[in-house]
Amino acid sequence: MTVYMIGAGPGDPDLITVKAVKLLKKADVILYDSLANDELLSYAPDDVELIYVGKRAGEHYRKQPEINELLIEQGKKYENVVRLKGGDPFIFGRGGEEELALLAEGINVEFVPGINSAIGAATMMGLPLTHRAVSTSLTLVTGHEDPEKSEKQVNWDYTADTLVVFMGVGLLKKYVPKLLEYRSPDTPVCAIENGTLPNQKIIMGTLADITEKEIKPPALIIIGDVVNVYKECLELRSKFE
Amino acid sequence: MTVYMIGAGPGDPDLITVKAVKLLKKADVILYDSLANDELLSYAPDDVELIYVGKRAGEHYRKQPEINELLIEQGKKYENVVRLKGGDPFIFGRGGEEELALLAEGINVEFVPGINSAIGAATMMGLPLTHRAVSTSLTLVTGHEDPEKSEKQVNWDYTADTLVVFMGVGLLKKYVPKLLEYRSPDTPVCAIENGTLPNQKIIMGTLADITEKEIKPPALIIIGDVVNVYKECLELRSKFE
Repeated sequence: MTVYMIGAGPGDPDLITVKAVKLLKKADVILYDSLANDELLSYAPDDVELIYVGKRAGEHYRKQPEINELLIEQGKKYENVVRLKGGDPFIFGRGGEEELALLAEGINVEFVPGINSAIGAATMMGLPLTHRAVSTSLTLVTGHEDPEKSEKQVNWDYTADTLVVFMGVGLLKKYVPKLLEYRSPDTPVCAIENGTLPNQKIIMGTLADITEKEIKPPALIIIGDVVNVYKECLELRSKFE
Repeated sequence: MTVYMIGAGPGDPDLITVKAVKLLKKADVILYDSLANDELLSYAPDDVELIYVGKRAGEHYRKQPEINELLIEQGKKYENVVRLKGGDPFIFGRGGEEELALLAEGINVEFVPGINSAIGAATMMGLPLTHRAVSTSLTLVTGHEDPEKSEKQVNWDYTADTLVVFMGVGLLKKYVPKLLEYRSPDTPVCAIENGTLPNQKIIMGTLADITEKEIKPPALIIIGDVVNVYKECLELRSKFE
Protein backbone atom coordinates (compact mmCIF):
# COMPACT_ATOMS: atom_id res chain seq x y z
CA MET A 1 0.00 0.00 0.00
CA THR A 2 2.97 2.27 -0.59
CA VAL A 3 4.10 3.57 -3.94
CA TYR A 4 7.84 4.30 -3.96
CA MET A 5 8.56 6.91 -6.59
CA ILE A 6 12.20 6.37 -7.45
CA GLY A 7 14.61 8.34 -9.59
CA ALA A 8 16.64 6.01 -11.78
CA GLY A 9 19.31 8.58 -12.51
CA PRO A 10 20.77 9.79 -15.80
CA GLY A 11 21.36 6.49 -17.65
CA ASP A 12 24.45 4.66 -16.35
CA PRO A 13 22.85 1.93 -14.18
CA ASP A 14 25.52 2.43 -11.47
CA LEU A 15 24.29 5.99 -10.97
CA ILE A 16 21.23 4.80 -9.09
CA THR A 17 21.24 5.20 -5.29
CA VAL A 18 21.77 2.52 -2.66
CA LYS A 19 18.30 3.35 -1.30
CA ALA A 20 16.68 2.75 -4.70
CA VAL A 21 18.38 -0.64 -5.04
CA LYS A 22 17.08 -1.71 -1.61
CA LEU A 23 13.51 -0.85 -2.65
CA LEU A 24 13.80 -2.46 -6.10
CA LYS A 25 14.84 -5.71 -4.35
CA LYS A 26 11.54 -5.91 -2.47
CA ALA A 27 9.24 -4.63 -5.23
CA ASP A 28 6.01 -6.51 -5.96
CA VAL A 29 5.46 -4.54 -9.15
CA ILE A 30 7.53 -1.97 -11.07
CA LEU A 31 6.02 0.63 -13.38
CA TYR A 32 8.83 2.03 -15.49
CA ASP A 33 9.38 4.26 -18.47
CA SER A 34 11.91 4.27 -21.30
CA LEU A 35 14.20 6.88 -19.75
CA ALA A 36 15.17 4.52 -16.95
CA ASN A 37 17.91 2.02 -17.77
CA ASP A 38 16.34 -1.44 -18.24
CA GLU A 39 19.33 -3.10 -16.50
CA LEU A 40 18.00 -1.74 -13.21
CA LEU A 41 15.04 -4.11 -13.42
CA SER A 42 17.38 -7.03 -12.74
CA TYR A 43 17.61 -5.94 -9.08
CA ALA A 44 13.96 -6.93 -8.64
CA PRO A 45 12.78 -10.33 -7.34
CA ASP A 46 12.21 -13.05 -10.00
CA ASP A 47 8.44 -12.97 -9.57
CA VAL A 48 8.10 -9.18 -9.86
CA GLU A 49 5.40 -7.85 -12.16
CA LEU A 50 6.82 -5.41 -14.73
CA ILE A 51 4.63 -2.77 -16.36
CA TYR A 52 6.08 -0.59 -19.08
CA VAL A 53 4.38 2.81 -19.17
CA GLY A 54 6.92 4.79 -21.15
CA LYS A 55 7.09 6.37 -24.51
CA ARG A 56 9.28 5.16 -27.32
CA ALA A 57 9.44 6.72 -30.76
CA GLY A 58 6.74 5.37 -33.05
CA GLU A 59 5.10 3.23 -30.38
CA HIS A 60 1.78 3.64 -28.71
CA TYR A 61 2.28 5.07 -25.25
CA ARG A 62 0.16 5.76 -22.23
CA LYS A 63 -1.06 9.24 -21.44
CA GLN A 64 -0.53 10.73 -17.97
CA PRO A 65 -4.09 10.16 -16.63
CA GLU A 66 -3.85 6.52 -17.71
CA ILE A 67 -0.53 6.14 -15.83
CA ASN A 68 -2.10 7.74 -12.75
CA GLU A 69 -4.98 5.23 -12.90
CA LEU A 70 -2.58 2.31 -13.25
CA LEU A 71 -0.56 3.52 -10.24
CA ILE A 72 -3.70 3.80 -8.12
CA GLU A 73 -4.80 0.32 -9.19
CA GLN A 74 -1.40 -1.21 -8.35
CA GLY A 75 -1.17 0.78 -5.12
CA LYS A 76 -4.43 -0.77 -3.94
CA LYS A 77 -3.35 -4.26 -4.96
CA TYR A 78 0.27 -4.56 -3.74
CA GLU A 79 2.34 -3.78 -0.63
CA ASN A 80 5.44 -2.44 -2.43
CA VAL A 81 4.82 -0.65 -5.70
CA VAL A 82 7.84 0.92 -7.40
CA ARG A 83 7.39 3.75 -9.89
CA LEU A 84 10.78 4.06 -11.59
CA LYS A 85 11.41 7.29 -13.47
CA GLY A 86 14.47 8.53 -15.41
CA GLY A 87 16.57 11.21 -13.68
CA ASP A 88 14.77 12.62 -10.64
CA PRO A 89 10.98 12.11 -10.35
CA PHE A 90 10.29 15.82 -9.96
CA ILE A 91 12.62 17.48 -12.47
CA PHE A 92 10.46 17.51 -15.60
CA GLY A 93 9.32 14.04 -14.56
CA ARG A 94 5.64 14.77 -13.87
CA GLY A 95 6.01 13.07 -10.49
CA GLY A 96 3.93 15.76 -8.80
CA GLU A 97 0.89 14.84 -10.86
CA GLU A 98 1.26 11.19 -9.90
CA GLU A 99 1.77 12.14 -6.24
CA LEU A 100 -1.43 14.22 -6.17
CA ALA A 101 -3.44 11.48 -7.90
CA LEU A 102 -2.25 8.81 -5.42
CA LEU A 103 -2.74 10.94 -2.30
CA ALA A 104 -6.25 11.89 -3.45
CA GLU A 105 -7.05 8.15 -3.38
CA GLY A 106 -5.55 7.74 0.08
CA ILE A 107 -2.52 5.81 -1.16
CA ASN A 108 0.79 6.50 0.57
CA VAL A 109 3.69 7.67 -1.61
CA GLU A 110 7.35 7.87 -0.66
CA PHE A 111 10.16 9.32 -2.72
CA VAL A 112 13.73 8.43 -3.57
CA PRO A 113 15.54 11.24 -5.37
CA GLY A 114 17.59 10.40 -8.44
CA ILE A 115 20.49 12.14 -10.11
CA ASN A 116 19.10 14.66 -12.52
CA SER A 117 20.04 13.72 -16.10
CA ALA A 118 21.74 17.06 -16.91
CA ILE A 119 23.76 17.31 -13.70
CA GLY A 120 24.68 13.63 -14.06
CA ALA A 121 25.82 13.90 -17.67
CA ALA A 122 27.74 17.16 -17.20
CA THR A 123 29.47 16.11 -13.97
CA MET A 124 30.47 12.70 -15.32
CA MET A 125 32.24 14.28 -18.30
CA GLY A 126 33.93 16.87 -16.06
CA LEU A 127 31.88 19.89 -17.14
CA PRO A 128 31.18 22.03 -14.05
CA LEU A 129 27.65 23.47 -14.38
CA THR A 130 28.59 26.10 -11.80
CA HIS A 131 32.09 27.50 -11.40
CA ARG A 132 33.20 30.29 -9.10
CA ALA A 133 33.89 33.53 -11.02
CA VAL A 134 32.16 32.09 -14.13
CA SER A 135 28.75 30.84 -13.00
CA THR A 136 27.03 31.16 -9.63
CA SER A 137 23.55 30.30 -10.92
CA LEU A 138 22.07 27.50 -12.99
CA THR A 139 18.67 27.32 -14.64
CA LEU A 140 17.12 24.05 -15.77
CA VAL A 141 14.26 24.51 -18.23
CA THR A 142 12.23 22.19 -20.42
CA GLY A 143 12.07 22.74 -24.15
CA HIS A 144 8.74 20.86 -24.13
CA GLU A 145 6.38 23.40 -22.66
CA ASP A 146 2.88 22.49 -21.63
CA PRO A 147 0.88 23.20 -24.80
CA GLU A 148 -1.79 24.79 -22.62
CA LYS A 149 0.69 27.45 -21.53
CA SER A 150 0.25 30.24 -24.06
CA GLU A 151 3.07 31.32 -26.33
CA LYS A 152 3.01 34.69 -24.63
CA GLN A 153 3.95 33.21 -21.25
CA VAL A 154 6.97 31.37 -22.63
CA ASN A 155 9.92 33.67 -22.16
CA TRP A 156 13.57 32.82 -22.70
CA ASP A 157 15.04 35.70 -20.74
CA TYR A 158 16.63 33.41 -18.15
CA THR A 159 19.24 35.45 -16.34
CA ALA A 160 21.19 32.62 -14.70
CA ASP A 161 24.81 32.24 -15.75
CA THR A 162 24.32 28.66 -16.96
CA LEU A 163 21.20 27.50 -18.79
CA VAL A 164 20.35 23.85 -19.47
CA VAL A 165 17.51 22.99 -21.83
CA PHE A 166 15.93 19.54 -21.46
CA MET A 167 14.14 17.73 -24.28
CA GLY A 168 14.59 20.76 -26.48
CA VAL A 169 16.29 19.47 -29.63
CA GLY A 170 13.19 19.52 -31.82
CA LEU A 171 12.47 23.11 -30.86
CA LEU A 172 16.07 24.39 -31.05
CA LYS A 173 15.36 26.52 -34.13
CA LYS A 174 12.41 28.06 -32.34
CA TYR A 175 14.02 29.12 -29.07
CA VAL A 176 17.63 29.89 -30.07
CA PRO A 177 16.56 33.13 -31.80
CA LYS A 178 14.76 34.06 -28.55
CA LEU A 179 17.87 33.27 -26.49
CA LEU A 180 19.92 35.45 -28.83
CA GLU A 181 17.86 38.43 -27.70
CA TYR A 182 19.46 38.03 -24.25
CA ARG A 183 22.81 36.31 -24.86
CA SER A 184 25.76 36.92 -27.16
CA PRO A 185 25.98 34.84 -30.39
CA ASP A 186 29.42 33.56 -29.31
CA THR A 187 28.02 32.10 -26.05
CA PRO A 188 29.41 28.55 -25.97
CA VAL A 189 26.96 25.65 -26.23
CA CYS A 190 27.43 21.95 -25.56
CA ALA A 191 24.84 19.34 -26.55
CA ILE A 192 24.95 15.87 -24.99
CA GLU A 193 23.20 12.86 -26.53
CA ASN A 194 22.83 9.71 -24.39
CA GLY A 195 24.60 11.25 -21.39
CA THR A 196 26.57 8.85 -19.11
CA LEU A 197 25.94 5.92 -21.48
CA PRO A 198 28.54 4.11 -23.65
CA ASN A 199 27.06 5.72 -26.80
CA GLN A 200 27.28 9.26 -25.36
CA LYS A 201 27.91 11.93 -28.00
CA ILE A 202 29.08 15.49 -27.32
CA ILE A 203 28.49 18.28 -29.84
CA MET A 204 30.17 21.66 -29.30
CA GLY A 205 29.10 24.95 -30.79
CA THR A 206 27.90 28.46 -30.03
CA LEU A 207 24.49 30.08 -29.93
CA ALA A 208 25.26 31.37 -33.43
CA ASP A 209 25.85 27.97 -35.03
CA ILE A 210 24.20 25.32 -32.81
CA THR A 211 21.06 25.08 -34.98
CA GLU A 212 23.25 24.02 -37.92
CA LYS A 213 24.72 21.03 -36.05
CA GLU A 214 23.26 17.54 -36.25
CA ILE A 215 21.87 16.74 -32.79
CA LYS A 216 19.61 13.74 -32.26
CA PRO A 217 16.92 13.82 -29.54
CA PRO A 218 16.81 13.20 -26.68
CA ALA A 219 19.71 15.51 -25.86
CA LEU A 220 20.63 18.10 -23.26
CA ILE A 221 21.69 21.57 -24.32
CA ILE A 222 24.12 23.39 -21.99
CA ILE A 223 24.53 27.12 -22.64
CA GLY A 224 27.03 29.44 -20.95
CA ASP A 225 30.68 30.18 -20.18
CA VAL A 226 31.07 27.00 -18.11
CA VAL A 227 31.41 25.24 -21.47
CA ASN A 228 34.71 27.11 -21.86
CA VAL A 229 35.91 25.72 -18.52
CA TYR A 230 35.23 22.25 -19.95
CA LYS A 231 37.22 23.13 -23.09
CA GLU A 232 40.12 24.29 -20.88
CA CYS A 233 40.01 20.93 -19.08
CA LEU A 234 40.03 19.04 -22.39
CA GLU A 235 43.09 21.00 -23.48
CA LEU A 236 44.96 20.31 -20.22
CA ARG A 237 44.05 16.63 -20.57
CA SER A 238 45.34 16.46 -24.16
CA LYS A 239 48.84 17.31 -22.88
CA PHE A 240 49.21 14.11 -20.87
CA GLU A 241 46.70 11.59 -22.16
CA MET B 1 47.23 8.14 -10.06
CA THR B 2 43.52 8.86 -10.46
CA VAL B 3 41.50 11.21 -8.31
CA TYR B 4 37.84 10.19 -8.20
CA MET B 5 35.75 13.23 -7.42
CA ILE B 6 32.58 11.81 -5.93
CA GLY B 7 29.30 13.41 -4.98
CA ALA B 8 28.15 12.12 -1.59
CA GLY B 9 24.56 13.28 -2.08
CA PRO B 10 22.31 15.38 0.14
CA GLY B 11 22.91 13.81 3.57
CA ASP B 12 21.07 10.49 3.96
CA PRO B 13 23.93 7.98 3.50
CA ASP B 14 21.69 5.71 1.38
CA LEU B 15 21.38 8.48 -1.20
CA ILE B 16 24.88 7.85 -2.50
CA THR B 17 25.24 6.01 -5.82
CA VAL B 18 26.23 2.39 -6.37
CA LYS B 19 29.19 3.67 -8.42
CA ALA B 20 30.43 5.81 -5.53
CA VAL B 21 30.26 2.86 -3.11
CA LYS B 22 32.35 0.71 -5.50
CA LEU B 23 35.06 3.41 -5.60
CA LEU B 24 35.00 4.06 -1.84
CA LYS B 25 35.65 0.33 -1.31
CA LYS B 26 38.97 0.51 -3.16
CA ALA B 27 40.11 3.93 -1.95
CA ASP B 28 43.70 4.35 -0.73
CA VAL B 29 42.93 7.77 0.68
CA ILE B 30 39.74 9.83 1.08
CA LEU B 31 39.70 13.61 1.31
CA TYR B 32 36.29 14.63 2.63
CA ASP B 33 34.47 17.67 3.86
CA SER B 34 31.80 18.20 6.48
CA LEU B 35 28.87 18.24 4.07
CA ALA B 36 29.38 14.58 3.26
CA ASN B 37 27.85 12.12 5.71
CA ASP B 38 30.63 10.56 7.82
CA GLU B 39 28.85 7.16 7.75
CA LEU B 40 29.94 6.83 4.12
CA LEU B 41 33.55 6.49 5.22
CA SER B 42 32.75 3.04 6.63
CA TYR B 43 32.60 1.66 3.05
CA ALA B 44 36.35 2.24 2.76
CA PRO B 45 39.02 -0.44 3.47
CA ASP B 46 40.30 -0.63 7.08
CA ASP B 47 43.71 0.74 6.15
CA VAL B 48 42.40 3.76 4.24
CA GLU B 49 43.95 7.14 5.00
CA LEU B 50 41.30 9.73 5.92
CA ILE B 51 41.95 13.44 5.47
CA TYR B 52 39.35 15.93 6.65
CA VAL B 53 39.46 19.11 4.57
CA GLY B 54 36.09 20.59 5.42
CA LYS B 55 34.80 23.53 7.27
CA ARG B 56 32.92 23.36 10.56
CA ALA B 57 31.64 26.34 12.49
CA GLY B 58 34.31 27.78 14.75
CA GLU B 59 37.03 25.43 13.57
CA HIS B 60 40.08 26.15 11.54
CA TYR B 61 39.53 25.02 7.98
CA ARG B 62 41.58 24.70 4.85
CA LYS B 63 41.35 27.23 2.07
CA GLN B 64 40.74 26.12 -1.52
CA PRO B 65 44.37 26.47 -2.76
CA GLU B 66 45.50 24.36 0.19
CA ILE B 67 42.94 21.65 -0.69
CA ASN B 68 44.11 21.72 -4.31
CA GLU B 69 47.74 21.22 -3.16
CA LEU B 70 46.74 18.33 -0.91
CA LEU B 71 44.85 16.66 -3.76
CA ILE B 72 47.85 16.98 -6.09
CA GLU B 73 50.13 15.54 -3.40
CA GLN B 74 47.83 12.56 -2.76
CA GLY B 75 47.22 12.08 -6.49
CA LYS B 76 50.97 11.67 -7.02
CA LYS B 77 51.30 9.28 -4.08
CA TYR B 78 48.35 6.87 -4.43
CA GLU B 79 46.59 4.85 -7.12
CA ASN B 80 43.01 5.51 -5.98
CA VAL B 81 42.37 8.88 -4.40
CA VAL B 82 38.76 9.70 -3.49
CA ARG B 83 37.65 13.30 -3.12
CA LEU B 84 34.24 13.08 -1.44
CA LYS B 85 32.07 16.18 -1.63
CA GLY B 86 28.56 16.88 -0.34
CA GLY B 87 25.79 16.97 -2.97
CA ASP B 88 27.23 17.01 -6.48
CA PRO B 89 30.88 18.05 -6.95
CA PHE B 90 30.02 20.77 -9.46
CA ILE B 91 26.89 22.39 -8.02
CA PHE B 92 28.38 25.07 -5.77
CA GLY B 93 31.01 22.47 -4.84
CA ARG B 94 34.11 24.15 -6.31
CA GLY B 95 34.93 20.88 -8.07
CA GLY B 96 35.91 22.73 -11.24
CA GLU B 97 38.76 24.48 -9.44
CA GLU B 98 40.08 21.18 -8.13
CA GLU B 99 39.72 19.60 -11.57
CA LEU B 100 41.75 22.37 -13.25
CA ALA B 101 44.46 22.22 -10.56
CA LEU B 102 44.82 18.44 -10.91
CA LEU B 103 44.81 18.40 -14.73
CA ALA B 104 47.42 21.20 -14.80
CA GLU B 105 49.72 18.82 -12.87
CA GLY B 106 49.00 15.95 -15.25
CA ILE B 107 46.90 14.00 -12.73
CA ASN B 108 43.87 12.15 -14.09
CA VAL B 109 40.49 13.01 -12.57
CA GLU B 110 37.24 11.09 -12.96
CA PHE B 111 33.82 12.11 -11.72
CA VAL B 112 30.87 10.47 -10.05
CA PRO B 113 27.82 12.72 -9.92
CA GLY B 114 25.93 13.01 -6.65
CA ILE B 115 22.36 13.98 -5.87
CA ASN B 116 22.23 17.72 -5.50
CA SER B 117 21.29 18.66 -1.94
CA ALA B 118 18.26 20.79 -2.92
CA ILE B 119 16.79 18.33 -5.41
CA GLY B 120 17.44 15.52 -2.93
CA ALA B 121 15.80 17.26 0.03
CA ALA B 122 12.78 18.54 -1.92
CA THR B 123 12.12 15.26 -3.73
CA MET B 124 12.45 13.16 -0.59
CA MET B 125 9.79 15.23 1.20
CA GLY B 126 7.50 15.11 -1.85
CA LEU B 127 7.93 18.73 -2.94
CA PRO B 128 8.09 18.82 -6.75
CA LEU B 129 10.62 21.50 -7.78
CA THR B 130 9.04 21.53 -11.24
CA HIS B 131 5.36 20.85 -11.86
CA ARG B 132 3.50 21.10 -15.15
CA ALA B 133 1.29 24.20 -15.32
CA VAL B 134 3.01 25.65 -12.21
CA SER B 135 6.76 25.54 -12.88
CA THR B 136 8.63 24.61 -16.06
CA SER B 137 11.93 26.16 -15.00
CA LEU B 138 14.15 25.92 -11.95
CA THR B 139 17.06 28.14 -10.95
CA LEU B 140 19.66 27.06 -8.40
CA VAL B 141 21.71 29.96 -7.03
CA THR B 142 24.19 30.38 -4.23
CA GLY B 143 23.61 32.95 -1.50
CA HIS B 144 27.37 32.96 -0.92
CA GLU B 145 28.63 34.97 -3.84
CA ASP B 146 32.31 35.19 -4.62
CA PRO B 147 33.35 38.32 -2.68
CA GLU B 148 35.38 39.37 -5.71
CA LYS B 149 32.20 39.62 -7.76
CA SER B 150 31.08 43.20 -7.35
CA GLU B 151 27.75 44.07 -5.72
CA LYS B 152 26.63 45.52 -9.02
CA GLN B 153 26.90 42.21 -10.82
CA VAL B 154 24.76 40.39 -8.27
CA ASN B 155 21.22 40.55 -9.56
CA TRP B 156 18.23 38.72 -8.15
CA ASP B 157 15.99 39.07 -11.17
CA TYR B 158 15.87 35.33 -11.77
CA THR B 159 12.93 34.68 -14.05
CA ALA B 160 12.59 30.92 -13.53
CA ASP B 161 9.33 29.73 -11.97
CA THR B 162 11.10 28.04 -9.04
CA LEU B 163 14.14 29.54 -7.31
CA VAL B 164 16.33 27.67 -4.83
CA VAL B 165 18.93 29.55 -2.81
CA PHE B 166 21.82 27.52 -1.39
CA MET B 167 23.80 28.56 1.69
CA GLY B 168 21.85 31.79 1.85
CA VAL B 169 20.40 31.92 5.37
CA GLY B 170 22.87 34.48 6.71
CA LEU B 171 22.15 36.81 3.81
CA LEU B 172 18.37 36.34 3.75
CA LYS B 173 17.67 39.89 4.96
CA LYS B 174 19.95 41.21 2.24
CA TYR B 175 18.52 39.48 -0.82
CA VAL B 176 14.82 39.06 0.06
CA PRO B 177 14.17 42.80 -0.50
CA LYS B 178 15.86 42.40 -3.91
CA LEU B 179 13.68 39.37 -4.72
CA LEU B 180 10.61 41.40 -3.77
CA GLU B 181 11.37 43.76 -6.64
CA TYR B 182 10.59 40.87 -9.01
CA ARG B 183 8.21 38.58 -7.12
CA SER B 184 4.99 39.06 -5.17
CA PRO B 185 5.21 39.29 -1.33
CA ASP B 186 2.79 36.35 -1.03
CA THR B 187 5.10 34.06 -3.06
CA PRO B 188 5.35 30.91 -0.93
CA VAL B 189 8.71 30.00 0.56
CA CYS B 190 9.93 26.77 2.16
CA ALA B 191 13.20 26.55 4.09
CA ILE B 192 14.76 23.14 4.79
CA GLU B 193 17.36 22.59 7.50
CA ASN B 194 19.30 19.29 7.47
CA GLY B 195 17.49 17.97 4.39
CA THR B 196 17.05 14.15 4.13
CA LEU B 197 18.50 13.65 7.65
CA PRO B 198 16.62 12.49 10.79
CA ASN B 199 16.84 16.03 12.26
CA GLN B 200 15.35 17.65 9.12
CA LYS B 201 13.31 20.77 9.84
CA ILE B 202 10.87 22.45 7.46
CA ILE B 203 9.89 26.10 7.86
CA MET B 204 7.07 27.53 5.75
CA GLY B 205 6.46 31.17 4.97
CA THR B 206 6.18 33.74 2.21
CA LEU B 207 8.58 36.28 0.76
CA ALA B 208 6.88 38.84 3.00
CA ASP B 209 7.54 37.04 6.30
CA ILE B 210 10.42 34.60 5.75
CA THR B 211 13.05 36.94 7.22
CA GLU B 212 11.13 36.92 10.53
CA LYS B 213 11.32 33.13 10.88
CA GLU B 214 14.05 31.36 12.80
CA ILE B 215 16.09 29.42 10.24
CA LYS B 216 19.45 27.91 11.17
CA PRO B 217 22.19 27.56 8.57
CA PRO B 218 22.97 25.57 6.55
CA ALA B 219 19.50 25.55 4.97
CA LEU B 220 17.95 25.56 1.52
CA ILE B 221 15.41 28.20 0.59
CA ILE B 222 12.79 27.18 -2.00
CA ILE B 223 10.79 30.03 -3.51
CA GLY B 224 7.80 29.70 -5.86
CA ASP B 225 4.32 28.29 -6.41
CA VAL B 226 5.58 24.69 -6.26
CA VAL B 227 5.54 25.18 -2.48
CA ASN B 228 1.74 25.36 -2.77
CA VAL B 229 1.70 21.99 -4.54
CA TYR B 230 3.56 20.60 -1.53
CA LYS B 231 0.97 22.16 0.82
CA GLU B 232 -1.80 20.56 -1.24
CA CYS B 233 -0.06 17.18 -0.83
CA LEU B 234 0.24 17.68 2.94
CA GLU B 235 -3.47 18.42 3.13
CA LEU B 236 -4.42 15.32 1.13
CA ARG B 237 -2.11 13.28 3.36
CA SER B 238 -3.70 14.62 6.55
CA LYS B 239 -7.00 13.05 5.49
CA PHE B 240 -5.74 9.47 5.71
CA GLU B 241 -2.60 9.47 7.84
